[in-house]
Amino acid sequence: MIVDVQSRPDVRGIALDQVGVTDLRYPVTVLDREHEKQQTIAQISLSVNLPREFKGTHMSRFIEVLNEHRGELTARTVKTILEQLKHKLNAECSHLEMRFPYFLERRAPQSGACGFMDYECSFVAELNGGMLDFVLGVQVPVTTLCPCSKEISDYGAHNQRGMITVEVRSVLVNGHPSVVWIEELVELAERCGSAPLYPLLKREDERYVTMQAYENPVFVEDMVRNVAAELQRDQRVSWFRVHARNYESIHNHNVFATCEWPNQ
Amino acid sequence: MIVDVQSRPDVRGIALDQVGVTDLRYPVTVLDREHEKQQTIAQISLSVNLPREFKGTHMSRFIEVLNEHRGELTARTVKTILEQLKHKLNAECSHLEMRFPYFLERRAPQSGACGFMDYECSFVAELNGGMLDFVLGVQVPVTTLCPCSKEISDYGAHNQRGMITVEVRSVLVNGHPSVVWIEELVELAERCGSAPLYPLLKREDERYVTMQAYENPVFVEDMVRNVAAELQRDQRVSWFRVHARNYESIHNHNVFATCEWPNQ
Amino acid sequence: MIVDVQSRPDVRGIALDQVGVTDLRYPVTVLDREHEKQQTIAQISLSVNLPREFKGTHMSRFIEVLNEHRGELTARTVKTILEQLKHKLNAECSHLEMRFPYFLERRAPQSGACGFMDYECSFVAELNGGMLDFVLGVQVPVTTLCPCSKEISDYGAHNQRGMITVEVRSVLVNGHPSVVWIEELVELAERCGSAPLYPLLKREDERYVTMQAYENPVFVEDMVRNVAAELQRDQRVSWFRVHARNYESIHNHNVFATCEWPNQ
Amino acid sequence: MIVDVQSRPDVRGIALDQVGVTDLRYPVTVLDREHEKQQTIAQISLSVNLPREFKGTHMSRFIEVLNEHRGELTARTVKTILEQLKHKLNAECSHLEMRFPYFLERRAPQSGACGFMDYECSFVAELNGGMLDFVLGVQVPVTTLCPCSKEISDYGAHNQRGMITVEVRSVLVNGHPSVVWIEELVELAERCGSAPLYPLLKREDERYVTMQAYENPVFVEDMVRNVAAELQRDQRVSWFRVHARNYESIHNHNVFATCEWPNQ
Repeated sequence: MIVDVQSRPDVRGIALDQVGVTDLRYPVTVLDREHEKQQTIAQISLSVNLPREFKGTHMSRFIEVLNEHRGELTARTVKTILEQLKHKLNAECSHLEMRFPYFLERRAPQSGACGFMDYECSFVAELNGGMLDFVLGVQVPVTTLCPCSKEISDYGAHNQRGMITVEVRSVLVNGHPSVVWIEELVELAERCGSAPLYPLLKREDERYVTMQAYENPVFVEDMVRNVAAELQRDQRVSWFRVHARNYESIHNHNVFATCEWPNQ
Repeated sequence: MIVDVQSRPDVRGIALDQVGVTDLRYPVTVLDREHEKQQTIAQISLSVNLPREFKGTHMSRFIEVLNEHRGELTARTVKTILEQLKHKLNAECSHLEMRFPYFLERRAPQSGACGFMDYECSFVAELNGGMLDFVLGVQVPVTTLCPCSKEISDYGAHNQRGMITVEVRSVLVNGHPSVVWIEELVELAERCGSAPLYPLLKREDERYVTMQAYENPVFVEDMVRNVAAELQRDQRVSWFRVHARNYESIHNHNVFATCEWPNQ
Repeated sequence: MIVDVQSRPDVRGIALDQVGVTDLRYPVTVLDREHEKQQTIAQISLSVNLPREFKGTHMSRFIEVLNEHRGELTARTVKTILEQLKHKLNAECSHLEMRFPYFLERRAPQSGACGFMDYECSFVAELNGGMLDFVLGVQVPVTTLCPCSKEISDYGAHNQRGMITVEVRSVLVNGHPSVVWIEELVELAERCGSAPLYPLLKREDERYVTMQAYENPVFVEDMVRNVAAELQRDQRVSWFRVHARNYESIHNHNVFATCEWPNQ
Repeated sequence: MIVDVQSRPDVRGIALDQVGVTDLRYPVTVLDREHEKQQTIAQISLSVNLPREFKGTHMSRFIEVLNEHRGELTARTVKTILEQLKHKLNAECSHLEMRFPYFLERRAPQSGACGFMDYECSFVAELNGGMLDFVLGVQVPVTTLCPCSKEISDYGAHNQRGMITVEVRSVLVNGHPSVVWIEELVELAERCGSAPLYPLLKREDERYVTMQAYENPVFVEDMVRNVAAELQRDQRVSWFRVHARNYESIHNHNVFATCEWPNQ
């Protein structure tokens, strides 16, 4: 029999918060409001805590648990996966993080021309004892037009691509995290920029979004506050962080604003 | 006179944690234990909090404050910079983050051949009221050789580049953060891997480090615990986080371990 | 009617090699030797040449052509897509580049444990007049163990993850590029390293691959030559470039070797 | 004596185009038109060809040659470095590639406020026999305002950060490449966008550049053609490639144009 080095005792007396696998690229299925499921590709980290008395964890078991679920990583299966990790690895706490692109079909505002937009999303889930903690993150690109530039100039106004990142922690209802759809966070963020981005715009659409952005100037500060104001009223959300960044068209650096609630 | 849009009042009642500039590349000078100062190039973020009653901050003032110091960003000047940001931007709290490569000359263990090694470092500093918080971070690449692979195989053992990231918060003495040198954290991390990396190795050195690594197998868990055990005894350190990652030579994903102390 | 600025004449007399869209993330379907088709996500560039007399191209048409094919980007459809681009954009030459992760199920050498490995792949296709040029690229991670380190040391040998990149141009048969499967290039590259990488290894497998790598030491130079020697004999290949890079476990830099054939 | 594995004969009969070190981060000094020299940090690749009869190259010698010059990598020293590489490694051809940020002080157009702008630059140099080939590359960020959006909209116009990449091969005069300054390529590219970017703009400057961009709309096609037209007349330049990319503020993908001359 081959010796099990990892299971030997450790005498340094130092417990580790997380031990696991990371930078794992894997095909996964996530929930889709419109089409039930969407196939995508995720970057995944899986970990458990390691009590002070054990020398190491068994890394191959993380992959085995992931394989068992054939990459179904939805709000529904996450708790089961985390429970299996805790069980198989003899841990009190298990942890999953993943990032993935999520695609939505978007329709141009005038011509109705369709195409896919990609949004970078994230799940961060932790099972500590029996309590599940679940945070959904979505990055939404928007057009942002500077209110100051518009007001102080005789014509024109600098604008640029901005990125709004929204992370929300779900209130637990009967031990399960309340469902907040990726689609809802996308729509919320898009309402808070100067105009949405589109995959495909014909000339009449370009005219429309150019003027829409000019009529709705926002600072990064405004975008964060507008998103935050709506999330504070959302009963499903127990915590959020909103971050906005503008890829300034007049500077070679970016500007940002951020707000966490409740402030920890 | 040109109107000042940012200074207008805001009625949404939402304070922002941080507003500022980011992704700013800038030539800077940092402290060097051996040569007093070292010139390098940093990625910088500067920010302040924004009270609920103001519409926006004045982004150009961040750059002005940075320029005044001509990029001298040392433990000594950071407090002054943060005070000026608070003052110029009428804020209660100011924040600086920067990442930069730091170079040390390293000598091969047998031939004595010299060359430069680069270490990715970071400063995170915050001035909240009059209290300065300062966290130094250093990423140290090492060789790691797997104890399990060595023990269960008749010959050989898989090894790879690993990365140990150490972040330490300094105890304040008379309002100033205790000095912890980048060099000290590099040396500490290098002692905790299987062998250090070198910029330049001749054949006799390659033989030496190959055998050194084989004699000192470590798991990612071991590296984190070894670094943590030393830092717990360091009187200058009030908090630390240690993270280790192995770019596994037998897998296409990586493994990691992490430990934060005191656990928050 | 909205004016068409792009169609106006240009008088500078400078033709452009490529004008188009890039950094477009899109769900695509590619051919899979085992399962016929595989869904993945690509980064895409689409472009055409622009004759000297036209001011600009119509960027939205690239997206329209891509949408029509609902992301089916296989050796079979690429020619049609390129023809439509040429036609819709009035160009002599059209060009497609895409990069995407491709997944294969791999079985551990002793336990038979299964899991997915990801390989970064690329298509570069050009239609110039009626001639289709098609280059397939595959990046294959392998274990590499240094022959010098093994020979000069009493025990052990430094090893690390290496990356072999193979690009092959297909011979045209009746105007269609000969099919070379991604799977074939993966298998070829894996034979040329010290050992393959695996998604999931149990202890008996780890013992196996550790010893396999020790028995098959290779320099980056060897890997490139071994791949090149096989490709030179492949009748389907009219040109190739092989590149290998080792993420050296004893240095903080990497080493590489490259070979192009026939040398242009 | 330790055996020299790399110097053994090879029988596969395959010559390699390049073998060497890469991803090496190193402090370097480059020429500066204003201040004679500028210290920066480069990512470097150094390589030589490997004839069919040798098994491997000696990687440590690349670092030794680099160290001898203490990072002075100017048009003046590059030839000496490449000659030493050829000599020390017994090769017919040696090759250096490096990328580095280069800083220039820029003055705001109205207030005169100063700050540093960073430009990503590259050297690609090859010594083949006695002939030196030298290509300088500079990436220049600019503001670009869309002519179509401006013309078809009642007010406003979408604009964004764009990036112009210029690469020029120098004509040799007495075996030395003609000097083309980084500063010249920066100024050329900035003239060809809608407005330059600045590190620091006060309100009067923001008004100025907003209106300047609105008055100078350009497509990516225009930027490439404008740069190309000037370079074709430059007697010091034997070849160039110009690439422009717009980080579209209304789309989540980018658009690009490129022109190579003479077309190879």
